[in-house]
Amino acid sequence: MTRSIEFWFEFGSTYSYLTAMRIEDAAAARGVAVHWRPFLLGPVFTAQGWDTSPFNIYKAKGEYMWRDMARRATRYGLPFRRLPESGPGAFPQNGLMAARMALIGLNEGWGEDFTRKVYSAEFAHGKDIADAGLLERLAVMAGAGPDVLARAQAQSNKDRLKANVEEAFRLGIFGAPSFIVNGELYWGDDRLEDALDAAVA
Amino acid sequence: MTRSIEFWFEFGSTYSYLTAMRIEDAAAARGVAVHWRPFLLGPVFTAQGWDTSPFNIYKAKGEYMWRDMARRATRYGLPFRRLPESGPGAFPQNGLMAARMALIGLNEGWGEDFTRKVYSAEFAHGKDIADAGLLERLAVMAGAGPDVLARAQAQSNKDRLKANVEEAFRLGIFGAPSFIVNGELYWGDDRLEDALDAAVA
Repeated sequence: MTRSIEFWFEFGSTYSYLTAMRIEDAAAARGVAVHWRPFLLGPVFTAQGWDTSPFNIYKAKGEYMWRDMARRATRYGLPFRRLPESGPGAFPQNGLMAARMALIGLNEGWGEDFTRKVYSAEFAHGKDIADAGLLERLAVMAGAGPDVLARAQAQSNKDRLKANVEEAFRLGIFGAPSFIVNGELYWGDDRLEDALDAAVA
Repeated sequence: MTRSIEFWFEFGSTYSYLTAMRIEDAAAARGVAVHWRPFLLGPVFTAQGWDTSPFNIYKAKGEYMWRDMARRATRYGLPFRRLPESGPGAFPQNGLMAARMALIGLNEGWGEDFTRKVYSAEFAHGKDIADAGLLERLAVMAGAGPDVLARAQAQSNKDRLKANVEEAFRLGIFGAPSFIVNGELYWGDDRLEDALDAAVA
């Protein structure tokens, strides 16, 4: 019987923020271990013919997403701000460097705290997480060594992230957050409880 | 204080089936009145540049939808079958005539039962709801007079459905099921409880 869940997240994803901030408590309440899996939605979107988030392409859906996010954040007691449509910090933000750093951190025990710090910077404070200096400070605060930026940029680490993206494709993942439990895919922050329940069924 | 909810549904929509079968009980438990609003997603999809359901265009998302629907139907104790990709009864089915009949029925007290009968024919039994004869039988079983097909095809009734579609656009509706409570839009069967809670807040 599996008592673990894979949590696939993209740093630019609004709904991934909700899950990142609450998954540990929700999983611990059921005795489920969380395996954090950063990946990138960009290649997924490109494969579907999109050059940005579908929330930007489909305006009515995008407007709804921001409203729904605000309501969900209120429900969970999380701060949340809508990101601008253009200029610095515009949605969707580039989560490439954050994902590379998170991969290192998740191997070294500081990755989960780093991930939450990045999401807070982005969606609670509106900062641009493509800023390598910001990410470096957040990583060091979470417990990283001072060489984290260089290590994130090492070819072997870049390749690890690429492998995650390829695995996401193989798993049929098309959005974030996604969860894998016993080979079953669950998509969306609003399926977190279903996925956790499946892990203990 | 509003204690009512608008339930916008499309007969070809899988997730609308889930809601149609359970909304009356869920709303009654909270003392909320349900205003059933049939509309068509076709014009919404056309406006977004799609010639079919996005579940057919985006394969990974479509595969997930059928799996998610099966799990959700099990949770609700509802029968459910995946529709074929082509041929008679293929997904998405054409809900135009069903929506026209439902409009009449919702004015005459048999529309809710008719709507549930149509969804059951489609998603529990795999029948093609574009079949006017099938719809006529279901409508008469639900309480319609024998002239229901002709009345559904009257220009004034066609115009009423068109007006519903235009109202859906104005409300920012981009998918089904959708709910309107106090001017707020909620999208998806998995937002039904949120919407009902908002109606009694």
